[in-house]
Amino acid sequence: MNISARNQLRGRIVDIKRGAVMAQVTLETAGGARIVSAIFVDSVDALGLKPGDEAVAVIKSTDVMIALP
Amino acid sequence: MNISARNQLRGRIVDIKRGAVMAQVTLETAGGARIVSAIFVDSVDALGLKPGDEAVAVIKSTDVMIALP
Amino acid sequence: MNISARNQLRGRIVDIKRGAVMAQVTLETAGGARIVSAIFVDSVDALGLKPGDEAVAVIKSTDVMIALP
Amino acid sequence: MNISARNQLRGRIVDIKRGAVMAQVTLETAGGARIVSAIFVDSVDALGLKPGDEAVAVIKSTDVMIALP
Amino acid sequence: MNISARNQLRGRIVDIKRGAVMAQVTLETAGGARIVSAIFVDSVDALGLKPGDEAVAVIKSTDVMIALP
Amino acid sequence: MNISARNQLRGRIVDIKRGAVMAQVTLETAGGARIVSAIFVDSVDALGLKPGDEAVAVIKSTDVMIALP
Repeated sequence: MNISARNQLRGRIVDIKRGAVMAQVTLETAGGARIVSAIFVDSVDALGLKPGDEAVAVIKSTDVMIALP
Repeated sequence: MNISARNQLRGRIVDIKRGAVMAQVTLETAGGARIVSAIFVDSVDALGLKPGDEAVAVIKSTDVMIALP
Repeated sequence: MNISARNQLRGRIVDIKRGAVMAQVTLETAGGARIVSAIFVDSVDALGLKPGDEAVAVIKSTDVMIALP
Repeated sequence: MNISARNQLRGRIVDIKRGAVMAQVTLETAGGARIVSAIFVDSVDALGLKPGDEAVAVIKSTDVMIALP
Repeated sequence: MNISARNQLRGRIVDIKRGAVMAQVTLETAGGARIVSAIFVDSVDALGLKPGDEAVAVIKSTDVMIALP
Repeated sequence: MNISARNQLRGRIVDIKRGAVMAQVTLETAGGARIVSAIFVDSVDALGLKPGDEAVAVIKSTDVMIALP
């Protein structure tokens, strides 16, 4: 995708939990990592997201922190 | 780490680029994904980060978008 | 906590309001400031947060704006 | 300030570090907490910020994480 | 508004969708753009927001990505 | 663009200011609004951005605040 956000993790949606306004979407990457996202229920519907779909988690670098293990 | 941020990707730092205020830190996960982070140079120094170190990329779920591939 | 986020305000949780997906967690610092946070209900449960608990509000510096009073 | 951001911490600017694009502004609250912010050098100049000035750190609640101490 | 956030888009609120914790507020700018915001229901009530009101969408520059069309 | 971020403002890049790590990119929308973005210099180069180019400012709804005028 031609967007400035440097972090784009491809995977498969494994769960969608819907509230009235916000949804919690969980994606599992090929490498086995679980990425959880908070987006609008409206966005889930606009993109037609459902478990099993391929999708990409996109994250702006200014939103990534570094911690020591 | 006992923090509400759901996304914690463990890996190894592969590159640090330093500016006057901000630094660009690149981490490679065990699964082979590259995660890029924009943090203060002060934070790099406070944590003593250097290439080769094990580290964790921490991302709040409200900062994760979902895109179609 | 060994994390790049420079802002870590210690206090006590004074209120948790739960929705279906998101929760609103209010913390009061020793200095008397109220800090409000929007996190997943899942995160509240994973950390076992409840009013009266000691907790730390963690904020990445790129998310802090400066205004004139 | 009439803004939806719930977190507004009043204090005094104690340090400003300028890069080419970004600045690191440190504010000390009345309660003694240090808050660090990453904003544009352009914003520092537009607001005329300098050490000693009273200022308010403004933070959107979706950008606040909760950790255990 | 005297705040470091460089992006301030003036418009009129056209829709508010309320959940238990979060609200989805849609603003239409004079230029005809639609801006959607996720804020607390508490913030909607504290500001007394309702459709038809003039309001300003405020966005920190570190939260703006650039994409190719 | 098939991404969950609801806010996509199309315009033309009018200025790029480069630091060592971060760049400040200014876009002007058809409606005449100026949108300023802080992204990596690396992202400017990866997308080949230059003044005069058409581009889209993309903003996640959780990063939009509402203020009273």
